[in-house]
Order: sequence, then C-alpha cells, then structure tokens
Amino acid sequence: MPTLRVVGIGTGNPEHLTLQAVAALADVDAVFVLDKGADKDALVALRRGICAAHIRKPYRLVAAADPPRDRRPSDYAGAVEAWHAARADLLGGLIRANLGAGEIGAFLVWGDPALYDSTLRILDRILARDPAAFAYTVIPGISSVQVLAAAHRIPLNRIGGPVHITTGRAIAGGLPPGAGSTVVMLDADPSFDNLDPELTIHWGAYLGSPDELLVTGRLGTVGPEIRRLRAEARARHGWIMDVYLLRRPEDA
Amino acid sequence: MPTLRVVGIGTGNPEHLTLQAVAALADVDAVFVLDKGADKDALVALRRGICAAHIRKPYRLVAAADPPRDRRPSDYAGAVEAWHAARADLLGGLIRANLGAGEIGAFLVWGDPALYDSTLRILDRILARDPAAFAYTVIPGISSVQVLAAAHRIPLNRIGGPVHITTGRAIAGGLPPGAGSTVVMLDADPSFDNLDPELTIHWGAYLGSPDELLVTGRLGTVGPEIRRLRAEARARHGWIMDVYLLRRPEDA
Repeated sequence: MPTLRVVGIGTGNPEHLTLQAVAALADVDAVFVLDKGADKDALVALRRGICAAHIRKPYRLVAAADPPRDRRPSDYAGAVEAWHAARADLLGGLIRANLGAGEIGAFLVWGDPALYDSTLRILDRILARDPAAFAYTVIPGISSVQVLAAAHRIPLNRIGGPVHITTGRAIAGGLPPGAGSTVVMLDADPSFDNLDPELTIHWGAYLGSPDELLVTGRLGTVGPEIRRLRAEARARHGWIMDVYLLRRPEDA
Repeated sequence: MPTLRVVGIGTGNPEHLTLQAVAALADVDAVFVLDKGADKDALVALRRGICAAHIRKPYRLVAAADPPRDRRPSDYAGAVEAWHAARADLLGGLIRANLGAGEIGAFLVWGDPALYDSTLRILDRILARDPAAFAYTVIPGISSVQVLAAAHRIPLNRIGGPVHITTGRAIAGGLPPGAGSTVVMLDADPSFDNLDPELTIHWGAYLGSPDELLVTGRLGTVGPEIRRLRAEARARHGWIMDVYLLRRPEDA
C-alpha cells in the first residue's frame, strides 16, 4: 500500500515549515498538486522552493488542473459536494496511476490541513470507496490565523475567553452572540461593512511574506482603508489572501 | 534596547519547532523561564533539549518560581489580573537585571503564544510602564488544537462552518448556540458530562509526545472511558495536558 503525507507548510514564509514537515518531505517519491490556475505564481514558486530545499531524492511532480468550481452558487453545500466528488475522482486516479506499493506521496497544504482545506475530506472520500488505496498521515502547519496574531503581537483570546474562527459568508449578517474574539477567513469581498464600527479589527494580508500588509484600528475608521489597500494590492499581485480578527475594545 | 523573542515551540514533540523558531533561537543570550513547579519534569526536559539543540552560543538560563495563583477563585478575572501583575513585576525585574542593551532574550512558549498563554499580555504590561524596556517579536508555534486534529486526521471545521475554541469553564453549562465544531482547552476536570451524549468527541492527551493518548466516539459512550484514562494517566505522569473537539455527527 502506498503512503500519503498531508503536510501543512504555513503561509508565505518558507521558514514556517516545522522540523517534522522537513523530515516528512525528505524521502517522498511524488508530490501531488491540484493547481488553481496561473494567477498565484508567487505561491507556486514558494511551494516549488520548499520541494527543492527539502526533498532529498529524485521525485515526481504530479500536477493536474483543479476541476472547475461554482464560486457563487445558489446551493453552497451542494456545489462544494459536487466539487469534492470531482476532485476525489481526479485525485484517486492520479494516486493510482502515479504511486506504487511502498512509495510515499505528499500533499503540500497552505496553512494547516485542518483549517478550511479540503485535502483530508477528499482523501477520506477516496478511501471510503477503496479502503486499501493508501494509508495517510497529517503534519500540522502554521495557519494564517497564527501568523496574523504573531505579526500583530496579540493573543487571539481575551483572558479565559473564546476564539471563534469563521468565514466572511457567516458574519455578513452580524457576529454570532458570544463569539468573543472572531477570526474571519475566506472573505473575498470584506463582509465587515455592516458590523458595529466600534469593534477593533486586526487585519493582515500576504502574511509571512515580504509583501505582508497589516492594519489595526477601530473598524469604522480603518475599514475603508483596508478595503482600499486590499483592492490596490489585489490588482498589483493578481491575487490576495487575507484574514482578520474582530472584537470589542479591551476596556468595553 | 534589548530584544525579546516569544517563540512558540509546539506540544510534546521537539520536531514541532518551525525553521523560523530554530533561526530565532540560534543567537539568544538568555532564556527566561517562569517555572510552574517540579511536577512536569518531562516538559522541562523537552524545553531543555530544545535549547541544547538549537541555541548556538553560550546562553544564560534565567529561571524563577512562578508567583502563586489562586486556581479556584471566586473572582476569576480579578485573580488572573492579580497573577498577571505579580508576574509582570517579577519578569520586568528579571529582564532588567539579566539582559543588556543589544542582547537577545527568548521565551519558549508551549503551543502557540497567541492561544491561552499569558506571555504577550505580561510583556505588554511591562512595556506599558516602561516603553523603552525592550522590543519584542513573536514566532508562532503549533498548538495542541492542531496536533489534535492532525493525530485524528480530521478537519477542525465542517465545510464552510465555524470553529469555536473555548475553555472547560465556558462549556460547563452547555455549548454556545451556533458554535459548530467546538474545541475545549484548559479543562482540568472534564466539563462534558452534562452535554448532549449524541455529540462526537475527538480527545487527545500528551499530544505529539510518545505518551500520546487518543479517543474518538459518541460522547455518551466514550466519555466515561476518557475520564478513566485521564485519571489513570494523570496519576502515572503526575500531570496531564489534554484537549478535545466536540460536534454533532456529520450526518445529523
């Protein structure tokens, strides 16, 4: 049976890699990549650099175009389900065709494989149909949430308080009650305009990379600036990845 | 001005260290440690091993006994406030006395400095009184939450759903509405007995270490087993660190 290693590689800084990830990459025979398109060349180059630096033997790069995905579906869960099914078919075939018994394959995942990434779900889908297809392990990686907090030098939680990690889609109608410190990911068109302007926002983009952008302040004051910075940077780079933390000011 | 580096070192596995953390430790002049007592020898040994492996010059270990803390206070926030104030006084004095201008000091923090750790708050308290005391940077580390997910090979979030990270204290009366996948930390006496027995629990202790324990199942079924395993392991090791994820079964 072949083995797969799902390796979290952090965000934007090749030094986010853990020693465990470095060891897990050293002896892989194949790296599997589903590409999201040509628009994130900086990310592709970063991933290529990680492979070149840490894989210690000749290896095969098995790349395929990601199946198309409906980004503004009327049925979100159904669209994700169809997309995962298509990815599982594609990846299952790639693994069968490109990884022999006893060989080791790797997936390099941005951030942490446990947070808003579909690799584990897709591997489990393949295994549900063919339990002997492969064995796999997961190596955690530094997520953008953590890089955001480190860059701003802030704790994610208030003392003894919760941290709620969610998506732009989920907060468009307001923060959930009792959410405390709320981290928002996957927010392609910032959803914070209708929230309480007195909230404090800690925002970051291209975290960990030389292009890192950071803004902190009262949401009502810096929100428009973040929107402007974001649009400008996205136009310049051709893509953006950002994340932010919202919460009441400390003394409130 | 001296510089401090607050370095997340992961949980129980020296290979959780990132390359960024390895680089940040290489040239430190002093490591500051507030010890919580003699009962976690395995953790002290792990930290000592990390220093020995990665600090590339002679360095000073500046250790002090942590100020006493009321663990069962009637006023939780007030007790934490008093404890932080005492720690800030102690640490501020240690830094002043042991780190010269241009020198580099390090704090090695379990997990990630942004999650349920007081180091950043205490440094900010010292700086609030003396802004020229030092400059500091933060290096993120792998948290127990991530190691839990990786060990169980599960995503923390459901598709597009939130992740709520909280404490045992906060869930004793029930999970917050809309919490989705809920990670519980700092739960010295598991608070899950009164929760819905149909929840799925993914539990882990001593994560990342050779003593790692993992249990998954229906809360009502495996809850008593976790309680028994926990008590037995705690008696054997003299301490325990554990964390768990609760959520509705996927098909519910």
